[in-house]
Order: sequence, then C-alpha cells, then structure tokens
Amino acid sequence: MLAKVYVTLKNGVLDPQGKAIHHAAETIGYQGIADVRQGKYFEVKLDSTLDESTARAQVEKFAHDVLSNPVIEDYKVEIV
Amino acid sequence: MLAKVYVTLKNGVLDPQGKAIHHAAETIGYQGIADVRQGKYFEVKLDSTLDESTARAQVEKFAHDVLSNPVIEDYKVEIV
Repeated sequence: MLAKVYVTLKNGVLDPQGKAIHHAAETIGYQGIADVRQGKYFEVKLDSTLDESTARAQVEKFAHDVLSNPVIEDYKVEIV
Repeated sequence: MLAKVYVTLKNGVLDPQGKAIHHAAETIGYQGIADVRQGKYFEVKLDSTLDESTARAQVEKFAHDVLSNPVIEDYKVEIV
C-alpha cells in the first residue's frame, strides 16, 4: 500500500522559493505564468499487513507530526 | 487555471532525505512504514487567457526545463 502526502504552505504564508522560481520563469521568457508556489511531496510505502483505516490514521499522524509544520503548512494524505 | 506539478526521483536513484525520514520514523516508534521517498510539488497559477492545451504545453516545458532535473527525476503535470 502506498500513501501520497502533499505538504503545502498555508495561504498567506510567504513563499520566497516559489517567488524566485516565478521570477526566473519570467526572466527566461515563459509567458502566462501568474504565480508559483512550492510544496513537498512524499511517497510513504506501508507494510501490506495494515488495513486501510489503520494505515490512513498512521500516515495522518506521521504527516502532522513529522512531515509538516502545522503552524505554517497544510497537508493532504491520499492512500492508493 | 492551476497546474500541479509533481517531481519525483526516478526509480533506482538514491534518496538520502527519504531514508533519513524513514529512519526517524522508526526511531520515534512508527510501525508499518516500509519506505519513504521525498519529492517536490509545485502549484503553478496560469493566466486565464491561455487555453488548456497551450497551458499544458507551457507547463510541461517549464516542468522539464526548470522544475526538474530529467537525468534523475520524473515529473507529472496535472491541470485543474
């Protein structure tokens, strides 16, 4: 079983890395790009012995406590 | 229009950051986590003047040339 975890900055939190990418895109001539925000993406492989609800609970806790900083970041967990 | 770009390391490419997260998870007592791989996630906001196929082509090129290193990374573009 695989869990995908997406971590993004909350709205309103400044994203200097995203701004730098956006600026670079403009400088090298990309048109039509209005904004870029950077986040993180994790693929968490789970033991197949876990059932889906345990796995989801486990990964939600892992995302909240380890993979993200809940003060400034949101996360989303998807089990596939 | 928003494009989501996922950048992941190709299979076989070592991921020391993912390994460190996995090791940390084991140390603090998470069970059932077999492996962790870290990638990057970008949200690219596009001008609404672009039609969808132009937008996709533009973002595919941007993901290939700027957001990822195609030697060691794969990318996936989603237009929402």
